Amino acid sequence: MGHRAVPEHTHPDDVPVQVALAALADPVRLQLVRELAGAGDWERSCGTFDVPVGKAALSHHFAVLRSAGLLEQRDQGRGRVNRLRRTEFEARFPGLLALVLREEGAGT
Amino acid sequence: MGHRAVPEHTHPDDVPVQVALAALADPVRLQLVRELAGAGDWERSCGTFDVPVGKAALSHHFAVLRSAGLLEQRDQGRGRVNRLRRTEFEARFPGLLALVLREEGAGT
Repeated sequence: MGHRAVPEHTHPDDVPVQVALAALADPVRLQLVRELAGAGDWERSCGTFDVPVGKAALSHHFAVLRSAGLLEQRDQGRGRVNRLRRTEFEARFPGLLALVLREEGAGT
Repeated sequence: MGHRAVPEHTHPDDVPVQVALAALADPVRLQLVRELAGAGDWERSCGTFDVPVGKAALSHHFAVLRSAGLLEQRDQGRGRVNRLRRTEFEARFPGLLALVLREEGAGT
């Protein structure tokens, strides 16, 4: 089936710090970011994340991460693949990703 | 009148990163932190902050900041005075306060 529309993205340079913090202040999104950080660019498709939420909620979390400049997505075949915008997010918010990634599993 | 009970505090060392991020991902609390950062320790009393919320909401925001290891409060006379836990929060989450403080007024 694929997805209905090309996802909207926000570049980290256009993200207020408050939006970035709110995106990361959620256990599901932290988990998504951590899994993405452990994978290569475009390696993970949307259905492969180990998070305890349904499809609609997952779709919402992806949208929040895109609007915070953390996630890039593109359609590939019948699915959608993901990339953590590590370099450009780091340039905008130096050290922030490192802070959340260093505490693997300690986010709750 | 004063306050009913001595406020509970959490040391930054005991704060999960997710709690710290959530505490800072709010415009009112960001404003409180920024005003505290611009003042000396114990210089600001609770009624002196320029935030558009009532007493109950303000009290809640102070509690969130205390539980995130960002704020220390103590009673003084009939009021309560405040201190940003800058040094110990910085030791726990290096660079995080700097990120939110550098964007004065750009938090929304």
